[in-house]
Amino acid sequence: MRAAFHEELAKITDQLVEMTHLAGSAMARATTALLDADVHLAESVIAADHQLDDIRSNLDALSIDLLARQQPVATDLRIVVTSMRMSSDLERMGDLARHVAKVARLRYPEKAVPDSLTSHILQMGQVAERIVAKAGSVIASKDADSAISLEKDDDAMDDLHRELFAALLADKADFPAETVVDLTLLGRYYERFADHAVSVARRVVYLVTGEFASEGEVDHEEQEEARGE
Amino acid sequence: MRAAFHEELAKITDQLVEMTHLAGSAMARATTALLDADVHLAESVIAADHQLDDIRSNLDALSIDLLARQQPVATDLRIVVTSMRMSSDLERMGDLARHVAKVARLRYPEKAVPDSLTSHILQMGQVAERIVAKAGSVIASKDADSAISLEKDDDAMDDLHRELFAALLADKADFPAETVVDLTLLGRYYERFADHAVSVARRVVYLVTGEFASEGEVDHEEQEEARGE
Repeated sequence: MRAAFHEELAKITDQLVEMTHLAGSAMARATTALLDADVHLAESVIAADHQLDDIRSNLDALSIDLLARQQPVATDLRIVVTSMRMSSDLERMGDLARHVAKVARLRYPEKAVPDSLTSHILQMGQVAERIVAKAGSVIASKDADSAISLEKDDDAMDDLHRELFAALLADKADFPAETVVDLTLLGRYYERFADHAVSVARRVVYLVTGEFASEGEVDHEEQEEARGE
Repeated sequence: MRAAFHEELAKITDQLVEMTHLAGSAMARATTALLDADVHLAESVIAADHQLDDIRSNLDALSIDLLARQQPVATDLRIVVTSMRMSSDLERMGDLARHVAKVARLRYPEKAVPDSLTSHILQMGQVAERIVAKAGSVIASKDADSAISLEKDDDAMDDLHRELFAALLADKADFPAETVVDLTLLGRYYERFADHAVSVARRVVYLVTGEFASEGEVDHEEQEEARGE
């Protein structure tokens, strides 16, 4: 019974790691689609999002089935419940990548991101990729120390987000309102993507150490913090 | 055993309904704080958000305890798991109300919302209040028909959101970039608030009917849809 249970838990872990791969790939491709105004790539990101939805849906069914059949208690119970929350975070990260791809599609054949902000958004995309890759490693290794290193990447994302606002609002900046709207939303999508990755890592830390910094959602994207005010 | 279980489930339901009251009150007060540039009211919304976090945290502990002690199966198991998801949605709604209050605080003593958009934001606040009140009734009554009526309020929110973008991007509009950033974020906060309320209602429908339109997160706020493109 326990052996079967742990086999199923291992299956859930594998699926969660697979979700981090899919979410990371989606955000990487969405960023390329956005910066290159590549509408076909954008479409493929949008079309592929159902994969994450499907895995999440299957994981939920598997988890509920596991709860019903194996009736886990204590740590085992927490692992199953926490896994369901992680799959919810990861599915949401896929949604955010899809949102980025949709901005690319909406502005095609124009580029949504002005040249002066291209390298900035590229950096946000790179931090997003790095943080979700680390979240995958943390899920697989259950290593609380690497989990903590995600917080640094999240700080880097916060800095980039703050700088993005500063660039949009600079006196000499004179972006069209459409660009300001697009970049405000894009900034939030990347920021929330990183928040959910941190949330995944914190859940792993919680399972390992029994300590959770905060049960609340991670949402560093407080406007005033992001704008350094 | 069953009687004790159902007593505890009733307690969870009461707490979820209480969360809808707190989230609704938070968004109503945040909207007033925003439109009146009332920094004290904004502060009180921000300070009160921990109440929702605390209830959610207690509900999670209660649910995990219930799973461990009562080992529910079938419908009872689904009710407990679904309740945990609803508390997560409702806590997030509180976060979004807090975000609105933070925009008010950030711009004080100025008003973040220009006069020409005041009645528009007021309407978004009213729809937000209505939809969360309905979500509370649906949780209490388990009435799938009223759950469906929330979708109409959500459509109204989508329309208001689309109109907000149109107003920001109109040729004659010449809002400062700061205003465009603020209103873009505010629009998203109200929209996501409504999405989570719909998500809560759909979860109740799922429990009652066993049918769920989509396991995915509700996120109508696709930029292109919102902008009617």
